[in-house]
Amino acid sequence: MKYKAIKLIKRPALKITPDIFQTVTLETPALESGQILLKQTHMSLDPAMRGWMSADTNSYIPPVELGAVMRSSGVAEVVESKNDRFPVGARVVGMIGWTEYAVSKGDGLQKLPPDIPAEAVLCVLALPGLTAYQGLVEIGKPKAGETLVVSGAAGSVGAMVGQIAKAEGLRVIGTAGTDEKCRWLEDELGFDKAINYKKDDLAKQLAAATPKGVDIYFENTGGPVQHIVFGRMNAHGRIIVCGMIADYNTDKPSPGPNWLNIIRKRLTITGFTMPDHWDQVPAMMAKLSAYYMAGKLKYRAHKLQGLESAIEGINLLFTGGNTGKLMVVL
Amino acid sequence: MKYKAIKLIKRPALKITPDIFQTVTLETPALESGQILLKQTHMSLDPAMRGWMSADTNSYIPPVELGAVMRSSGVAEVVESKNDRFPVGARVVGMIGWTEYAVSKGDGLQKLPPDIPAEAVLCVLALPGLTAYQGLVEIGKPKAGETLVVSGAAGSVGAMVGQIAKAEGLRVIGTAGTDEKCRWLEDELGFDKAINYKKDDLAKQLAAATPKGVDIYFENTGGPVQHIVFGRMNAHGRIIVCGMIADYNTDKPSPGPNWLNIIRKRLTITGFTMPDHWDQVPAMMAKLSAYYMAGKLKYRAHKLQGLESAIEGINLLFTGGNTGKLMVVL
Repeated sequence: MKYKAIKLIKRPALKITPDIFQTVTLETPALESGQILLKQTHMSLDPAMRGWMSADTNSYIPPVELGAVMRSSGVAEVVESKNDRFPVGARVVGMIGWTEYAVSKGDGLQKLPPDIPAEAVLCVLALPGLTAYQGLVEIGKPKAGETLVVSGAAGSVGAMVGQIAKAEGLRVIGTAGTDEKCRWLEDELGFDKAINYKKDDLAKQLAAATPKGVDIYFENTGGPVQHIVFGRMNAHGRIIVCGMIADYNTDKPSPGPNWLNIIRKRLTITGFTMPDHWDQVPAMMAKLSAYYMAGKLKYRAHKLQGLESAIEGINLLFTGGNTGKLMVVL
Repeated sequence: MKYKAIKLIKRPALKITPDIFQTVTLETPALESGQILLKQTHMSLDPAMRGWMSADTNSYIPPVELGAVMRSSGVAEVVESKNDRFPVGARVVGMIGWTEYAVSKGDGLQKLPPDIPAEAVLCVLALPGLTAYQGLVEIGKPKAGETLVVSGAAGSVGAMVGQIAKAEGLRVIGTAGTDEKCRWLEDELGFDKAINYKKDDLAKQLAAATPKGVDIYFENTGGPVQHIVFGRMNAHGRIIVCGMIADYNTDKPSPGPNWLNIIRKRLTITGFTMPDHWDQVPAMMAKLSAYYMAGKLKYRAHKLQGLESAIEGINLLFTGGNTGKLMVVL
C-alpha cells in the first residue's frame, strides 16, 4: 500500500521554510515477526520540533537526521499486527513521525483506553500534559494556596499547567497574546486572571493580580513577561523553565534578568525537558487520565487537515496564530 | 569600663561612605543573671554587609536598624560571666557587631575549641566556610571527577569552595582579578587552574581548562565571568548563586544570560543565603573543622587594626583590594 511521509532534508535557518522538507511516497513493507503496521490518525505539532530540526549539539535530544522522516508524536491505530501486545484495532500514542503509516515493534508506544478521543490524547495525555505535569508537580512542588503565573498560558502546555494548578488549589494567573485567548482562560479554564501581555499594562495588572507575590513561575515564552514576573517572585520561589518560544527563531536572544534577586529571594530556577523523564510516563499518564475523567482538564484543538498541512502549519506555533493545541488530522 | 562601638546612622547610597557610621563611646553595664560580657578580638568584614545596611525589604535578613550597632560576626573571649555555659576564658564565635565589647545571653554563639586560631575561625568556620560548604556540598551535590568553576575564587568564600571541591575530588578552576591571586590559588590552594579575568582571554582559557565542560558553577561575582561560564555548562549542570559582588554597588545591574540554555542543558540555578540554614551550623562546623585539621583548608587573612579601620576598610571588598579574608583585629 502506498503512503506519504515528509522527510527533513535541510536544517532550518532562522525560520522554518517549506524547502527544508520533502514529501515522499513510500510503500508499506510486509511485516516481520513482532512488527505492527500503524495508521496514524492525529499527528501533533509542538514547539519542541524547532529544536529537533536543528543541528544544535547542545540540545537535549539528538537532532532529526537529514533524510529521515520528521519526528513527531501522534495517535495511531494498529491495522496489521504480528505482535500479540498490539492486536489489530488497538490505539496507541507515541513518536510516530510525519507519516501516514509506520512500522513499529511497539517500543515506546503506549496503548490507549478506548474512551478517550484522539484529540484529548494529544492535548492532555501526550507531550503537553506530560510536560505540564512533570514541570509543575514534580519540579515545582506546588502547595495549595500558593500563587502561580504561567506564560504562554493559552498554549498547549500552558493551558494544562494552569488547570492542573487550579485542581491542586493554587491561585493561577496566565499571560497570553489576545483578548480572545484571555477570555477562554478565564471563562472556560477557570484561571483567576488572564492578562494580554501585548495590550494590557502587564506590570500593573500582574501586581494587582498577585497581591501576595508569585511562588511559582512556569516559563513558556521568555520575552518581556519573564522580567516582570521575575521581579514579583517571593522568597523561596520556584521558576520552571519549559519553553522560550520568543527566542527560538532569532539569532539575538534577549538577555535574562540580573541574578541578584536569585540570591535575595533564594530562588530555584530549573530547566527541564520531558525526554529526561520517559520512565515516569505511565505514572504521569494515569494521573492525567484521572484529572481528565474528572472534567478538570479542558482543551481546545486547532486541527489542520492532511499530512502536508504540517509544512506551513508548524509556523503557527511561532506566530501565536494557533487557537489551541496544534495537530494534523490524517 | 568604657568601650567603642560603631552605629549605622544612614542607609548607604551606591557606595559605602564614612558618614553613614558614627563611633560612640559606651560603658559596659553590670551583668544580670544569665548574661556574659564579651571582649571581641577579631571582627569579620563580609560582602553580605552591604545588604544588611540597605533598607531593601527584599533582602533575606532584616536590615540593621538606623541607630543600632552595625552587624558583623566575630570571635570574642568571655571576660565576665553570670552564665554557666560560658565561663570566663571561653572563646566564642557569633554575630557580635562592630564593637569592642558586647553583652549577650549566649543565644546564637558557638563555643570554640582552644586549638583553632581566631583567624582560622573567621576564615574557615565562620560565614565564609559555612557559606561555601552549604552552597557547594548541600546544594551543588558535587561528585568526584566533575568540573567546578568558582568566580571570585580568591575571595573568602571562593577560596573555601575551591578547596572543599578539591578535597571532594573535583577538577577546580577559579577566576580572580590579579596574577598574584591566581598564583596563590594554583600554588598554595591546589586549584587546577586560575584565570585572571581582567587580563587573560577568559573564554579561550576557560575552554582550554574545562575540556569536559562545567558541571558546577559557584557564582560569587556576576559580571562578564557569568556569561562565559554559563555557555560552558554541561547537561544537568548546577549553578549556585552565592554572590553578585559586581552588582552590589551599582544602580544598573548587568543583564543575565538568556534562559534558553537552562532548558537545553536542564540546568538548575539556586540562590541561597546562610541565614536560611542556621540549624545546620553545628554539623557543618564539625565537617569544616575536620577538613581544617587535616590541612585541607588554607586561608589568607587581610587584617586591619582597630575598630574604626572597618569604616573605610569595608570598601576593600568591593574594589578587590583585599588580599585574603578581611577582618579587623581589635
